[in-house]
This record gives sequence, C-alpha cells and structure tokens, in this order.
Amino acid sequence: MRHNNRKNNELRTIHITTDYVKHPEGSVLIEFGDTKVICNASIEDKVPPFMRGQGKGWITAEYAMLPRATQQRNIRESSKGKVGGRTMEIQRLIGRALRSVVDLNQTGERTVWVDCDVIQADGGTRTASITGAFVAVVLAFNKLKKANKIKKMPVTDFLAAISVGISPDGTELLDLDYGEDSQAHVDMNIVMTGEGEFVEIQGTGEEATFTVSQLQAMLGLAAEGLEKITDKQKDVLGEAAGSIGETKQTEGDTP
Amino acid sequence: MRHNNRKNNELRTIHITTDYVKHPEGSVLIEFGDTKVICNASIEDKVPPFMRGQGKGWITAEYAMLPRATQQRNIRESSKGKVGGRTMEIQRLIGRALRSVVDLNQTGERTVWVDCDVIQADGGTRTASITGAFVAVVLAFNKLKKANKIKKMPVTDFLAAISVGISPDGTELLDLDYGEDSQAHVDMNIVMTGEGEFVEIQGTGEEATFTVSQLQAMLGLAAEGLEKITDKQKDVLGEAAGSIGETKQTEGDTP
Amino acid sequence: MRHNNRKNNELRTIHITTDYVKHPEGSVLIEFGDTKVICNASIEDKVPPFMRGQGKGWITAEYAMLPRATQQRNIRESSKGKVGGRTMEIQRLIGRALRSVVDLNQTGERTVWVDCDVIQADGGTRTASITGAFVAVVLAFNKLKKANKIKKMPVTDFLAAISVGISPDGTELLDLDYGEDSQAHVDMNIVMTGEGEFVEIQGTGEEATFTVSQLQAMLGLAAEGLEKITDKQKDVLGEAAGSIGETKQTEGDTP
Amino acid sequence: MRHNNRKNNELRTIHITTDYVKHPEGSVLIEFGDTKVICNASIEDKVPPFMRGQGKGWITAEYAMLPRATQQRNIRESSKGKVGGRTMEIQRLIGRALRSVVDLNQTGERTVWVDCDVIQADGGTRTASITGAFVAVVLAFNKLKKANKIKKMPVTDFLAAISVGISPDGTELLDLDYGEDSQAHVDMNIVMTGEGEFVEIQGTGEEATFTVSQLQAMLGLAAEGLEKITDKQKDVLGEAAGSIGETKQTEGDTP
Amino acid sequence: MRHNNRKNNELRTIHITTDYVKHPEGSVLIEFGDTKVICNASIEDKVPPFMRGQGKGWITAEYAMLPRATQQRNIRESSKGKVGGRTMEIQRLIGRALRSVVDLNQTGERTVWVDCDVIQADGGTRTASITGAFVAVVLAFNKLKKANKIKKMPVTDFLAAISVGISPDGTELLDLDYGEDSQAHVDMNIVMTGEGEFVEIQGTGEEATFTVSQLQAMLGLAAEGLEKITDKQKDVLGEAAGSIGETKQTEGDTP
Amino acid sequence: MRHNNRKNNELRTIHITTDYVKHPEGSVLIEFGDTKVICNASIEDKVPPFMRGQGKGWITAEYAMLPRATQQRNIRESSKGKVGGRTMEIQRLIGRALRSVVDLNQTGERTVWVDCDVIQADGGTRTASITGAFVAVVLAFNKLKKANKIKKMPVTDFLAAISVGISPDGTELLDLDYGEDSQAHVDMNIVMTGEGEFVEIQGTGEEATFTVSQLQAMLGLAAEGLEKITDKQKDVLGEAAGSIGETKQTEGDTP
Repeated sequence: MRHNNRKNNELRTIHITTDYVKHPEGSVLIEFGDTKVICNASIEDKVPPFMRGQGKGWITAEYAMLPRATQQRNIRESSKGKVGGRTMEIQRLIGRALRSVVDLNQTGERTVWVDCDVIQADGGTRTASITGAFVAVVLAFNKLKKANKIKKMPVTDFLAAISVGISPDGTELLDLDYGEDSQAHVDMNIVMTGEGEFVEIQGTGEEATFTVSQLQAMLGLAAEGLEKITDKQKDVLGEAAGSIGETKQTEGDTP
Repeated sequence: MRHNNRKNNELRTIHITTDYVKHPEGSVLIEFGDTKVICNASIEDKVPPFMRGQGKGWITAEYAMLPRATQQRNIRESSKGKVGGRTMEIQRLIGRALRSVVDLNQTGERTVWVDCDVIQADGGTRTASITGAFVAVVLAFNKLKKANKIKKMPVTDFLAAISVGISPDGTELLDLDYGEDSQAHVDMNIVMTGEGEFVEIQGTGEEATFTVSQLQAMLGLAAEGLEKITDKQKDVLGEAAGSIGETKQTEGDTP
Repeated sequence: MRHNNRKNNELRTIHITTDYVKHPEGSVLIEFGDTKVICNASIEDKVPPFMRGQGKGWITAEYAMLPRATQQRNIRESSKGKVGGRTMEIQRLIGRALRSVVDLNQTGERTVWVDCDVIQADGGTRTASITGAFVAVVLAFNKLKKANKIKKMPVTDFLAAISVGISPDGTELLDLDYGEDSQAHVDMNIVMTGEGEFVEIQGTGEEATFTVSQLQAMLGLAAEGLEKITDKQKDVLGEAAGSIGETKQTEGDTP
Repeated sequence: MRHNNRKNNELRTIHITTDYVKHPEGSVLIEFGDTKVICNASIEDKVPPFMRGQGKGWITAEYAMLPRATQQRNIRESSKGKVGGRTMEIQRLIGRALRSVVDLNQTGERTVWVDCDVIQADGGTRTASITGAFVAVVLAFNKLKKANKIKKMPVTDFLAAISVGISPDGTELLDLDYGEDSQAHVDMNIVMTGEGEFVEIQGTGEEATFTVSQLQAMLGLAAEGLEKITDKQKDVLGEAAGSIGETKQTEGDTP
Repeated sequence: MRHNNRKNNELRTIHITTDYVKHPEGSVLIEFGDTKVICNASIEDKVPPFMRGQGKGWITAEYAMLPRATQQRNIRESSKGKVGGRTMEIQRLIGRALRSVVDLNQTGERTVWVDCDVIQADGGTRTASITGAFVAVVLAFNKLKKANKIKKMPVTDFLAAISVGISPDGTELLDLDYGEDSQAHVDMNIVMTGEGEFVEIQGTGEEATFTVSQLQAMLGLAAEGLEKITDKQKDVLGEAAGSIGETKQTEGDTP
Repeated sequence: MRHNNRKNNELRTIHITTDYVKHPEGSVLIEFGDTKVICNASIEDKVPPFMRGQGKGWITAEYAMLPRATQQRNIRESSKGKVGGRTMEIQRLIGRALRSVVDLNQTGERTVWVDCDVIQADGGTRTASITGAFVAVVLAFNKLKKANKIKKMPVTDFLAAISVGISPDGTELLDLDYGEDSQAHVDMNIVMTGEGEFVEIQGTGEEATFTVSQLQAMLGLAAEGLEKITDKQKDVLGEAAGSIGETKQTEGDTP
C-alpha cells in the first residue's frame, strides 16, 4: 500500500504558486506532495560568448538543494568547492528539456537563467524542477512580451516531467516518493511535450534490469500522469497559456 | 520619508514561521518586510576533530543567498568554486553570535549546523539570519531535551540582531531596507542578548565617518528595536522560551 | 548514404584487443570504426569508506578523452581544475551499468577501478567504453579467480551498449559516427544484458521530440546490434566467457 | 601586570620604517612590539572592469601571514588552494578603511594594490596593517604627485587603527598583545581618522558580552592611543604629511 | 646484469609510429622498451595573450599519464583538481626544449600545443616524450609547409633526450628502465640538439652526490645514445627530415 | 661591465642574519645583493602519513614571493587558488637538496618544514633560498640537540647553491642578478656539498644551446663561488658548524 493510500497510477497533490519571489522575471514554488522546489527564471540581455552575434537566445539551468532539504544534512557544494555529478546531470537535463520547447530564434540575444532550488525533498525533485521551471519560463517570456521586447511567445509547446518506476514486488508506480524511490528496482524519468511526444527518457536499473513490456507499462503510466500535470500548468498560467505554440519550433535553433 | 511611512525608529513587519521545513530538528522562516530567510538547525551527534573528547558541543553556521534573491542575479558560489568574502564574514558572525548564548558544556558532544538561506533579500539579511537562527536553535535543543538527550536547555539568554545606519541627510535609522542601506553613509549591525548586553557591534562608514554622538544615537535605536524583536521570539517559542536561561553561561566554554 | 555504404542497421567494424597495457589486471583497446578507447580495470584490495565492513565490493569508473582525440583540441580537465558535466554523466553511467551485472557480494572487499580513456573519438565513445570496460572487468575477475582470491566469477551476465538515433530525414540509425551524431535529431544510448533486458535507456531530443513508434524502432535496432556485439565479446573472452553467469545477481547488492 | 610593565592605556613601542622594499611605489615595515608587518602599496595604471570609464581610482588590499609568523606553523593559503575567512575579513577591512580617507575622484583611473604581509605576529596584526598601509599609500601617492601624474594628494585625512579589549578580570586594555588577546573576553578594533571620527568599529564578545559603559571605556582608550599613533605617522611622513587633506573627501566617491 | 642482457651503454628498443591518431596535425606513438607515449602536436591559429601582435608563434606542452600506466594506479589529476609538481616540471621541460630548436619568428602567429600522454610507463617517460614530441612537431610544421601556410620548416635542428644514471654499485647506465631508475643514486636527463650541443641538463642526487668525473662519464654515455636516437628520428621523418635546419635559429625569438 | 664593477667570477655581497623571526626553531634572513629571502625552519613532531612508523624524519620546503618582491606586482598564488609550476619546481628542488645532506635516520619521526619567502627579488632567489635554508635547518637541529631531543647533529655536510650563466656576448658569469639573468643565453643552478660534490645541476638554454667546454667553465665558476659561500655559512653558524658531519649520510635514508 502506498503512502496516503495512493493508487499506483495516482499523482501526489500538486501545488504551483506563481510570483513566489519578487525579483525574478518568472518565479514559481512547485510542490509534489512534500517535495518543494523554488523555480526562478531570470532574463539577462546577453548570451554566452559561444553564441554571440547569431541573433539567438539561450536557456541554461542550475539546480541545488538546501543542505537540510533531505533527512541527513548534505554538505553545501559551495563549501566543497565543486558541483557534484548528480547536480550536473540534473541541471543539464533541465536546460536541455526547456530548450526543446523554446524557439531560440524568437527570443533575441537573451539568456534565460533557470534556478531550481529544492527547499524540501521527498523524491522526484528533478521532474518537479522541470515542471515548475517550465511555468517560470513562460511567465518570464510573458513579461517580455507585455513589455514589447519580443513579439510572440517563443514557447512552442507545453513541457512537463514525471518519474515512474518498478517496486521490489514488480509493480509499476507513478510519481515515486523518496521511500518508494530508494527501494525501486527501476527508476525512470520521462519528459514530454503537451502534444505527447518524448523529450527525454532516462531509465536506470542499477539493481535490476527491465523488459520491453515493463518499459511499455511505465511509459503508459507516465503519459497518463503528464496529461494531468499539463492541465495544472494551464490553470496556473491562465491567459499566458493561450500564447504557447503561437510560434512553432524551427529546426536547428540550438547549437 | 521611509517606504510605507515607516518612522525612523520603527521596525518592518516581522513574521517568524516555525517548523517551516520538515526534516531539520529546528526550522524557521523569518521575514523582516520583504527579506525572507530560511533558518534550519541540524543536530549532528559528533563534533569537529579539534573538539573531540572534551565532552563539549559546537555550533557552526553557513549562509547563502539563492541566485535570484536579489534584483540582479548572482552567480552561485558552488559554480564559482569558492565561498566569497562577504559570505564568510556573515557566517562567521552568525556562528560566533549563537555560541555566545549557548553553554557548550551542556550540549554533549554534538554539533549544531545552522543553515541560513536567503530566499528573498531586501536589506538586513545577516541580522534576520541571526534572529531566526536563534529560534531554530532553541527549537532544536528543545527537541533534544524532550527526547531526554540533554537535561537542561543549554541556551543561556535570548539573542537578536538588527541593523541601524545614518542616511545621507544625517538621520539615524532603524532596520534599513535595501534602498536605504545602499544609500546609507554608515551601516551598523548590533547583536544583543535578552539582558541588553552587546554580543557584537560592527559599524562601517565607507563613504563617511561618524562621531561618538552618532554612535550613541544608533545604539539607542538598536536597543529599542531589539527589545521588540525579542518579544516576537518569545511569542513564537511559547513554552520553550521559558527554559532559556535555566543554565547560565560558564566561562571558557568556547575555544 | 552512410559513410562506407553502411546500412541503417549495420554496426561499424569492431575490434577488441585484450592485454593492451601491461600493468592493469584487465586491459582492453576497443575500436568501433575510428572510435578507439583504452579500458583498464584495476583491482584494489579495499573499498571506499561508506562500504567498509560489509564484506562487499564496489565498482567505479572514470572516463576521459585525450585533448586531441577530437577534431578540435579540448582543454584538459586537469588544467581546468575540474571535471565537466558531460564527463561526470558518462562515468556515472559506466559505473552504474557495470554494477548491474556484477554480484558485489561475491567479490570480497575490493574496488574495481575502471578507466576509459578515449584516444580517438568518432562518435559513440560512451557506449564503446561500456562495451570494452565489461571485457576488461571480466578479465580482471578471471585473474582473481585463477589466483584463488575469489571462488566464482562474480559477473552475472554479459553487458554491452550501443547508440541509436534519428537522422534529420527521419530515418532510425544504428551506431552513429560523429558526423551522424552531430546532425541527429534524437540521440539514444541503450545498455543491455546478454539476456536482452534493459540496464539503461537514455534518449534525448534536444532539437526535436520523438514518438512512441520511433522509440520502438530505435529499441529494435539496438537489440539487433547488441546481440552481435555480445558475440564479439564472447569470442574475445574465450574460456573466461563460460564462467559468466555462474553466480546470479542477488538482490540488494548495491547500496 | 602586563608584559614589560605596560600600563593599561599604554601602547607598545611602535617603529615605522619607510622604503623597506625597493620595488613598490610605497613600502613600509611597521612594528607594534613584536608584531611586524610589511605594507607595500603598488600603483597600477588601470582599474578593475566594474569601474572602467568613470575617471576614478580604486584601492584594494590583500593580507597574509608567513607560515611561521605564529607560534604554530600555519598551512599556506596557496597550498590549501583558497583564502580563509579570517584573511578575507581582514583584507576587506583594510581596503574599506583606506578608501574612507582617499578621494578616488582625484587619483585618475588607477588601482592601488596594498599588500600587508605579516612577518612576525604578536597580536594586533590587522590594526598594524591598516596603520602601516596608510603610510605606504601616502608615500605612493606622493611619488605620483612628484612625477606630476596627479595634481593634489588625494588623501583627505590621517587614518590609524588600534585594538582594545577587556581582560578576564574586567579591565579595559589598550593595544593587546597575543597573550592578552587570546584570553580577552571582548576584542574590539577601532579605525579612526586624524580628526577623531570613527571609520570602523568591530567589537566581539564570543565568550562574554559587554555593557554600554564598558564600550565607552574602550572607545576612550582607543581615541587616546590613536592620537599618539597618528603623531608617529606624521613624523615618519615628514613633508608628505603636510599635503594630507589638501583635497577633502567628496561624497559618493566609492561604489 | 641489466634486463634482457642490455649493456650499460645500450638503448632499449625504440619504435616511432607516425600518424598514430587521425585528428592532430602531427601524431606519434613512441616506445622505448615498455614505455609508450602518444605525442600529438596541434596547430592553433592564434597565440596566447602575452604574445599577440608580435608576428611570432609559441609552443607549449602538456604531459599526463593514464591512471594505470604505472604498476600502482594513480589518481587522475582532473579528479584531484590540480596538476602536480612532477607533471608541471615535466611539461615545462618539454615546452622549453622544443622551443630551443624552433625559430618562432618563422611560424606565424600560431601556437603548437604538444600533448604527451603516457599509456604505459617503464622509466624515461619525460625523455621519450621530448623525443617523440619533436617528431610530432616536425610532422605538424611539414603539413603547414605543404599547405603553403609557412614558407620554410621553422625547425632549426634535431632534438632528442635520454636519461643516464649511476647504479647503487657505482656503474654509469644509459636509458634506465623503471627498476633501474627507482634504485639509482643519481638520475640525470640530457636534452641535446642534432649538432651535439646541450639544451638541458638536469642531474639530481637525492640519496647521493656525484663527482665531476662521474658527470663526464654520464655525459659521454648520453651523447653516444642520443646520436642513435636522432638516426631513428631521421629514418621516421623521411623527406621531412631534409628540411630541418633550412632556417637557423635567430636570437631572441623566445620571450 | 657588470653592475658595481663586479668581476665575472665575483659574488654579490652576502649577508646572513640569524634568528630573524622569533617563533621558528631556525630563522635566517639571507641577502645576495638586493635579493632578500626569509628562510624559516619549523620542527613538527610527526611525519607525513607515507613515512609513519619507520622511525625516520622528513624535510619538505615551500617557496613563495611577496607580490611586490618584483618590479611588476605578481598575483598571489593564494588568490589564484593554485601554486604555479615555477614555484613547485623551486620548492621541490629546495627540499631535495636539503634531504641530500641530512641523515633522516637520525632525526626521529619529525618533519622539518622549510619556508623560503622572498621579500625582495633581484635574481638568484632559488639558490639564495637553498643557501639560507641550510643555515636555518642547522640552527633548528642544533636547538633539538641542545634540548637533548636528538643525540647528534644529523646534518652530514655543508650545502650551498649558486647560479652561473652565459651572457649574450658568450661570457660565463657567476651569481647573476635579475638584469643579467633575463638576458642570459644559458642559465644554470648548481647545488654542492661542502666536500665539493654535486647535489643538483640544472642547466637550461632556452634561447641558445651550450657546449661541453662552456659547461666546464660554468662548473668551475660555481665551485669557486660555492667555496666562499660555505665559508660565510661557517662564520654565521659558529659553534654549530663544528657538529656538521658528526653523522655521515647512510644509504637509502630517503624514500
């Protein structure tokens, strides 16, 4: 039995609070059950050196956890003097996923810095980060659009992410909490567009392996869950949601 | 005229939310107007190498800002690979201040890790951090006491901090917000005990200098403000407040 | 048309040279076309601190490229003073994949250090690394077994990896070279056991997204290619291949 | 009884040797008893990026101790790979203090690098550094003035620093040596201008707290001592002393 | 008796394989017995900032060992986050030696990056690196010359290096392998031009000292060996060897 | 004509001041003309991990320059976060040279930390460092001997170092100052024992090469100069000089 009698295909309660912090162009607090992440999108009016002069924009993401977001306190990466492998993997994933639904030819020479800071962790922090970051990015572009700095919303489709996995007894589960995740034999993160196409699939069976049919079952659970999450995003974005897709992704817009 | 018609000797609205994050032994969200800091106190059942075998405890603090806590996004210290001078100064100050009101002979060989993470900055983040961290530390020790791991509350007195300064027109001000702070000619941070004794005075006049009488005026404003802040702390701590001072600081308890 | 008239489901020529370097317990040079990787497995008679005293072993991997393995010279990570995100992702992947087919309860308190150093790169360096590292690890354990330091081969199944992708014209391709990889819309790395079960799936569509049916087609190509690669591994391992699977993976053998 | 029968309000013997090292524009060896610091001021004909194009100058300070300046050898910060918190605090303090008495609008786009290197430490190294660095900076500007690179001495007032504290028996002391400092209950550093105004007050009671009247007593001792130190600086600077104050600090000259 | 009955003045078997890796402008695998080093020379069409605008070129070298090039696995310098003293010494030596036989006025504003990566170590890795790097550099310049980017071969003379030493029984030895090197009382590396002039002499007697006559004997052995090594280089370079010396070193061509 | 009409085989004026800093066990200020180096020897009552339990001692050296020891200010290595190649080379050389004349079997399990800090540089800082460090080490061991912590002086012979070189006009010179060194075609550092045997020879011809007869001439100059330097060391060491050599170097005393 899952915590709170959740069904295997049932998401945790999701809250998305917009304008959570006052300074960023887009700011969101996203909660999946006890997992809480602040997602801030900051617009900078220049691009990194390798992209200058092309008339295009860039999106990059950083991810961190407060030291006591977890049960055991973690040492700060600033104190260690370096960013760990897990953090790098996650922030590369977040950036890549966001870039897949933004037409960087429509943003001008601007960088969107996305900061995902986990305040409290209970499993699924990377998928919550992507889901919340998407909302923050749309809010930030909406602000640019209202200020007439860009003409169209450069976001081409919705984007959300969720985890699925296989429990020790072989059951496929949607949206694993920390307790489930630490026991799961297979752990998979799926990022999808609003149109239901895959952006990323990352499935790992460190203690176990998985078959094609288990893969299908997990993909099915994920698709079902992601549809509901996208509905949440639409509700929260209100009017701004309507402008998503007014530009369509053009080919070759990322390096 | 100050923002929101604040008087020169008036504090901003202060909120202290306890149990803000679920994992730490003590967790507080403290707000001074638009300045918001999460203060978490974590208990670890060992002390750093230089203190082992003395039967005493240790308190250490770390301070950080989310990259977009400020108007301009700051580069993460983990990305830079080192902790900056301002951060080091602040976290050394927080740790030192907390140790001045804790009898480390009464804590057992335990380390209290205090993490102050600024979510939103609008001036006074270091003094808000000290004030909130004090509450988090009391909550953490109270949990230890209820679990019979320590016999008495090792906190010997209340502790709070506030900033004062001198505006360009020569007026002394209490509790400066960011706009005031960035224009002030003199910036001073005062840490005091509940008994009204000084723990730290740090006054700086980078663009200007100040006289003895200006110093007196600022100290007066600070004392007045700190009394009100301590009242807030008492309210929030409830029953736990009563146990503060049941041990008195013994001499020589810090290295 | 692919380079050298390769068919879409055709692997590049694969060579695996064993005992390539004289010092390591297991040493392999693996070539996939022009991609060349030295994979060395070193046995150390202790485990990292977090695993001591459990009677179990550990496998960890490091990956690097010579500065001029690529068309443009890359700055050494030792000169930069830090290991980059891509490197970390790859070395975490290699380690995780190898651990999935080794019963760490059967290795004694030993660490296997796997070093994958790319001498020449032409696409698919991470999958070549996994495939070659597997052979090096089997060789190293075989040496331990012959020296009577372990009783059984602790490797539970074969392991190999390959890349698949979708070209700009929508064709699914097996084993992409650098030219193909840099143009592909979707890039996917599949790690599979000899039994045909998934160990890792990592699929990314940075510029594009992909559908369920495209996913199926790519998985089919990969399975076909991996069967041939495993046959190569068997040939090269000779007698040692026969001992693979003499222990079966026990549950919970990795932390 | 203090070492050498010093009275509570008595300074140690102070020596200031000018032109101590031959390369720097201003070079001083300052001795407060057994504390010896080399203070070098170097003029660079450009400013840091954040100040370019404003027609103003900048002053920055660095502080270090030789490893065996102290009773126990300290590990070099270059070997550790990072500058510690105490060092950062001190060098930020030195720079800030010097900038308070230099009109940076009168220096041209130049940076003054101040290096304070402690050769032998016996308490009060930071206050000796400020006091000696002030002399080195005046010498460096005097050289610029004589070479007609600046028209007026941009130093607006004298600057000196001293420590005061409270001994375990409650006595206020001036100019603590290492033995006194390591036992003091309160440790305070005061930086003052020649006109007797405060530039910095930093008072810390880690083991103890202090009252308003103790603060007053310490400030009195400091003022008395600083007057004598400024006389020393005047003697040593000779003719150059006369030009101090020929420009008066203009408002807003530091960022 | 030396390994393989080598005589005291006998070199190990030397192999030089050109075009070993396909991307670099010059690429060589050099083997001295069991010591194997990949030497790649990469041409970059710009020079470091300190040399810009002088119409001259630059040569710099980097050296590394694969972690398991040695009997005991070494920790990667990228993982340590810094390049060690031994590595720095060696790469400075390689760069300096190569610059002594290249007329940097004839190369245009180009940098030659030389990467020496030791795949397998058995003594003499630094001298093998210099010897192989020389060949790689000539190959790279030859490619530039054939592409009409430079008019003449800028290499002014041959360059090779070898180690000599004194065994515990007092015998002078040529070309020490690892076993000999680790026992030798004196270890000396000699770099010479084809004309038989010295470029570098580095002799060290950590456990012992050496006399003038021992020095003479070692220099004699080295000269004899270096002549044979230069013959090897000539054979391998073929036609390109003929162009060496068509420019003569001009004075003052290195900074 | 050399500066101050020095002859080609003439040393600069040498001063060695003992007990320069009060805390170290051995402390020396050494001056070769305008080159000034503080050499401190500190005794620590333990050895590094790799030497524990062998009953032997260790000597290690660190070298640094004050930022403004040179004509242009250098960035501190602590600020850069890493020790440069030149520094590493020099400190490895100093340590190695000192260990060649100390019988580490006679020191007990102690480490001698030698710190050479250049206050003012005018050429020959590394040879001055070795020469001064030798005196500091003898003074430190003498203190140990007087305190009956060791029975005999473990220093087996005198040790001194000097630079020689070849000027652009082909003249061999002894003890080059900075102006000469920066123009020299060949730069060579010689470390010798009091008995006149070589400890280190490091000769470099970056812009030029040198012949055997030039080498001989330089070695002759060095031997002549080193004899005079050793006489200076004897004078300064007084009675302690007499105990040098009372133990003779035993074989294999360094790892």
